[in-house]
Amino acid sequence: MKNVNSESKLKIIPLGGLEQIGMNMTAFEYEDSIVVVDCGLSFPDDEMLGIDLVIPDVTYLKDNIDKVKGFAITHGHEDHIGAIPYVLKDLNVPIYATKLTMGIIDFKLKEAEMEKKVKRKVVKYGQSINLGCFRIEFIRTNHSIAGAAALAIYSPAGIVVHTGDFKVDYTPVYGAPIDLQRLAEIGKKGVLALMSDSTNALKPGFTMSESSVGKTFDTLFNDNRGSRIIIATFASNVDRVQQIINSAVKYGRKVVIEGRSMVNIIGVAKELEYINYPDGTVIDVEEMKNYTDEQIVLITTGSQGESMAALSRMAASLHRKVTIHPGDTVIFSSTPIPGNEKSVAKVINELSMKGAKVIFQDTHVSGHACEEELKLIYSLVKPKYAIPVHGEYRHLAANAEIAEHMGIPKENIFVMFKGDVLELNDESAQITGTVQTGAILVDGLGVGDVGNIVLRDRQNLAENGIIVVVMTLDKYSSQLLAGPDIVSRGFVYVRESENLIENARMVVEEAVENCLYRNVTDWGKLKNVVKDTLSDYMWKNLKRTPMILPIIMEV
Amino acid sequence: MKNVNSESKLKIIPLGGLEQIGMNMTAFEYEDSIVVVDCGLSFPDDEMLGIDLVIPDVTYLKDNIDKVKGFAITHGHEDHIGAIPYVLKDLNVPIYATKLTMGIIDFKLKEAEMEKKVKRKVVKYGQSINLGCFRIEFIRTNHSIAGAAALAIYSPAGIVVHTGDFKVDYTPVYGAPIDLQRLAEIGKKGVLALMSDSTNALKPGFTMSESSVGKTFDTLFNDNRGSRIIIATFASNVDRVQQIINSAVKYGRKVVIEGRSMVNIIGVAKELEYINYPDGTVIDVEEMKNYTDEQIVLITTGSQGESMAALSRMAASLHRKVTIHPGDTVIFSSTPIPGNEKSVAKVINELSMKGAKVIFQDTHVSGHACEEELKLIYSLVKPKYAIPVHGEYRHLAANAEIAEHMGIPKENIFVMFKGDVLELNDESAQITGTVQTGAILVDGLGVGDVGNIVLRDRQNLAENGIIVVVMTLDKYSSQLLAGPDIVSRGFVYVRESENLIENARMVVEEAVENCLYRNVTDWGKLKNVVKDTLSDYMWKNLKRTPMILPIIMEV
Repeated sequence: MKNVNSESKLKIIPLGGLEQIGMNMTAFEYEDSIVVVDCGLSFPDDEMLGIDLVIPDVTYLKDNIDKVKGFAITHGHEDHIGAIPYVLKDLNVPIYATKLTMGIIDFKLKEAEMEKKVKRKVVKYGQSINLGCFRIEFIRTNHSIAGAAALAIYSPAGIVVHTGDFKVDYTPVYGAPIDLQRLAEIGKKGVLALMSDSTNALKPGFTMSESSVGKTFDTLFNDNRGSRIIIATFASNVDRVQQIINSAVKYGRKVVIEGRSMVNIIGVAKELEYINYPDGTVIDVEEMKNYTDEQIVLITTGSQGESMAALSRMAASLHRKVTIHPGDTVIFSSTPIPGNEKSVAKVINELSMKGAKVIFQDTHVSGHACEEELKLIYSLVKPKYAIPVHGEYRHLAANAEIAEHMGIPKENIFVMFKGDVLELNDESAQITGTVQTGAILVDGLGVGDVGNIVLRDRQNLAENGIIVVVMTLDKYSSQLLAGPDIVSRGFVYVRESENLIENARMVVEEAVENCLYRNVTDWGKLKNVVKDTLSDYMWKNLKRTPMILPIIMEV
Repeated sequence: MKNVNSESKLKIIPLGGLEQIGMNMTAFEYEDSIVVVDCGLSFPDDEMLGIDLVIPDVTYLKDNIDKVKGFAITHGHEDHIGAIPYVLKDLNVPIYATKLTMGIIDFKLKEAEMEKKVKRKVVKYGQSINLGCFRIEFIRTNHSIAGAAALAIYSPAGIVVHTGDFKVDYTPVYGAPIDLQRLAEIGKKGVLALMSDSTNALKPGFTMSESSVGKTFDTLFNDNRGSRIIIATFASNVDRVQQIINSAVKYGRKVVIEGRSMVNIIGVAKELEYINYPDGTVIDVEEMKNYTDEQIVLITTGSQGESMAALSRMAASLHRKVTIHPGDTVIFSSTPIPGNEKSVAKVINELSMKGAKVIFQDTHVSGHACEEELKLIYSLVKPKYAIPVHGEYRHLAANAEIAEHMGIPKENIFVMFKGDVLELNDESAQITGTVQTGAILVDGLGVGDVGNIVLRDRQNLAENGIIVVVMTLDKYSSQLLAGPDIVSRGFVYVRESENLIENARMVVEEAVENCLYRNVTDWGKLKNVVKDTLSDYMWKNLKRTPMILPIIMEV
C-alpha cells in the first residue's frame, strides 16, 4: 500500500465506544473528508440518576460539518444506531447500512418523524460506497443480529479494517458465515490498521455458533411437552427468534410474540425476509385463548429483568394479557448484562413463586468474538497497527495483549481514549491531540440540560433528602416577619420526628435572630449561617447530611 | 423420638433470612420458651436509597420477652450477627456461639460500647446448652469462615437440625471436616425437621474445598515472582488469608494487611489462634518501604468493588499509603456478589489503566453447599419435614425440589415466608398464622425513622429533582406580598434554562393570582393549584415529573 501523498495522514478519532460498551462512534478524517462509523447511544450508569439514555457529543462533527460525507453503520444494535435520531437532527448527511440495519433505522426515524429528513442508502455485502476521498466496503460478518458488517475503509493513507461487532460463526442461522476470504484478500493487499471488537477479548477459546442454541431448544421443547413455554430473549436477536419458531413448528406449537420492541423488530425482519415461517405459525396474543398450554410458545422481551418489559410485567401480575400459572416453563435465552443480575433474579423469584419452572442455562451464546477468533482475524488481516475498540479499558487492554502475541509490535498498538486523535500512515502513527467529546444526557425531552451539577444534586437528594428553610424578612427593617419554617422531603418520617424538626427549627431561628441582631444584611451570609447551623445539628443528632436549601423572601 | 406432650407443638417462626440472602433470624418456640437462632443484618436493596443497613423487626420477641431464653449464633458473618448491637439494646438475653464467632461479636459489642451489657457464653463443638425447655447442641461444619456450627435443637416436640451456612469440606484449611458422623447419629435417633442452607441449591455438584485455592495461590506466586502481589478477598475469610500467608512464607514475601474490617477480623483470629504464621511475617504498611516489590504481598479488602474499601481507593489513587504501579499483580480472590459486578469492573478498569495485571479467576470457592452436598445432608439427617432456609425464593424452591427428590413427601416440605408460624410435631405440621416482621432501615444514627414514604420521596428526588415554589401572603387581605419564587435542585442546569424557569414562574404566578382573585383562602387548595399547574407545564415541556413543593408563608 503506497501513500499517494506521504505528507497527509489519516486521522482516526473515536467519539465514543471506548472506556465503555456503548455510544460507538468513530470519525475517520483525511484532508477535507470525514466519514463516521456508527452512531450509538449508551444506557445510563447507576450514578446517572433519572437519565434515560446517553448520546455522544458531536461538536467536532458540527464544527467540521462541511467535511462530513456520511455515516456508515455496522449493524442495528442500539449502541451503534441509537443516537441517530438525536445526531441527525443537527447534521444533514446520509446514512449507509445493510438492509436489516437500515430497516431498523427506518423504523426509528419514522418514530422520530424524521424519515423524510434523513437521506439513506442500503449497501450490500461486497459493495463499496465512495465518500469524499474514502471508499468504504461492507464485508459480511456474524453477530447476534443479522446484517452485521465489517468495514474496509480505503483512504489515501492506507486501508483500515473495522470489524464492527462480530463473531466467527461457521454455521449461522441466517445467511452465510463471515467472509474470511475477503478479509484475507484485503489483508494480503496490506492493511494499515485493524480496529477490532474487544468485548470478549478476556474470554479464551471460541464463541459457539448461534445454531447450537437451536438444538438446546429442541431438547427443551421435547422435555416440556406438557406445559406452556415462555422464552425471553433480546428483541433484536432475529436468529434466536427464528430458532424458537423452528422448534415451535417442529413440536406443533403456535407462536405469540410479546413486547413492543420485539414486535417491532420481528415485524421489520419478517418484511425484509430475514425471518421465515409457515403462514399461521405466529398468532396474536388475543388468539391464545383458542389453544391449550401445550400448543403455545410465547416469545417475549424482558430477558434482562427490565421492569417495564413484558416478562417482568407477567412475573409481577401486571401484564394485561398473560398470567403466569403453575406448569409454565419460562426459559431465559440470554445472559444478564453486568448490572442486571439483581433485576433478573427478582423476576426469577416472582416467576417461581407463581409456580413456573424457570430455566436459565444453556440457551444463549454470545455475539462477540473470543480470544481465538480475534487471533484468526489478526492472522488474516495482518495489520500494521492494531486499535482495539468496543469495550471497557480492561477489554481493550486484553485485545491489545492478543495483538502483541500475534506479533504486532507494542508501539504499533493503540489503546485509545475517546477524543484522542490518532494520525497515521504507512510510516508512522501517533496520538497528536484531542478533540471535544463527552456524554450528553437525555432526560425526557431534555437533551443536555442535565449535567454534573444536577446529577450531584440528585445523588445527594437520593441519599439524604432535602430540608427547605424558608423565612420572610422586611426589606427595610431586616426584621423576621415569618418563619423560619422547615419543610423536608426524603429526610425523616416527619410525623414521628416532630421533636427533632421543632428543635432544629428553634436552633435555626436562634441563629437567624442572632444574625439580624448583629445587623447582618447580606442574605448570602445569612443563608450560609442557616446551612451551617442546620448541617451541624443534623450531623450531631443523626450522622446525616441532608441537602439544606435556605430561601429568604423579602416584603 | 417420642413427644412428651403430643398436644403441644413446636413453633418455628422465621423473622428474616427468607425471600432474601441476609437478615437471618429464626425463633423456635415451645410453650413458655423461645430460643432464637442468629441475629443478622442485610445490606440495602438498590431502591433503599441512602440506607446504610437493614435489621429485622423483632416486635414479636419484644412482645414475648419473658419467654426468650437466648440467641444461638451459627457463625460470624454480618448476615448472622450484624443486628446484635441493635437488637440486644432492647432485649436483655444471653448470646451463645463458638469461639471465633464470639470473638467477632465481642469486637462488635465493644465498638457499640455494649460489651458490659450483653451476657455471652462460648460453646464448643459437641457441647450443648439448655435454654428453657430447649437443648441446643453445636455441631462442627465448614464454611467460608472458621467456627461455623450447625445446631441440633432438642425440643419436647422433636429435634430440629439447623445447618447454618455450610459446605462439606473434607480438607479444610483450619480444623476438621464437618461432623458428618454426629449428624448421622442424630439422624438415626429421628429428626423432626431439617432447616438447610439453600444458597447454592441451584448449583449442581459439590463445592470445592477451600484448600484447593491454596494450590492456585502457590502457582500464582510462582508465576509472578517479579512483581508485587496484591490480593483482595473477603475480610472475614480467615482461612483464605491463612493460605495467602502460607504462600507468602513459601515464596519469601512479607505480608501487609490493609482495610479496617480485615485488620480487625484477622486481629481477632490471630488472638484466638485461628490463624498462625511465623513471627515477622506480617508487617505494618509503613514498613513496606523497606522491601522491594518482589518481597511484598498485600492482602486487602475491596474484592466487591466497594467504593470506600482499600483496593478501590488504591485503584482510584485515593489510598494514602499504597500506589498502584505498572508491574503490580492484583488478584481478586472472590466472586462478585450479584449487584456488585459493575463496581468490580470499574476497579479492574482503573487498575488496568495504571498498568497492573489483574487476575480474577480460579482463586475463589464458595462457602455454601451445592446440590450433592445437600443430598448428603438429607441422607444423613433423614428428617420428617424439610424447611429450606437462607436464600431467595428461587433458592428455597430449588432446595425444596432436592428434598422431594430425596424422598420427603411434598406435603412435608415447607417453603416459608418470614413471619409465617409453622407449628409442628411428629404427627403433623402446618402454617397456623403469621407474626409481625419487617425490615427496619438504619440511616446514620436513625433506626427506623426512614420508611416507605421517605424512600418513595428519595426515589422521586433522585430521578427528577425538586422544584420549591415559595410565596408570602398577607394573612388578612390574602394578597401576594412576595413571590412566587421558584428554586430547583436536581432538575435542570438552571443557568442554561433561565427561560424555562422564568416561564414556569409566570405560569404559576398567573394561576395563583387567579385563585386569589377568586378569593380562594384555603392554602391547601392553593398549593394543589400550584402543584398541578407546574406539573402540567413541566410534563408538556420536558416530559418530566419533578417533585413540586409549594410553601406559603403568612405575614
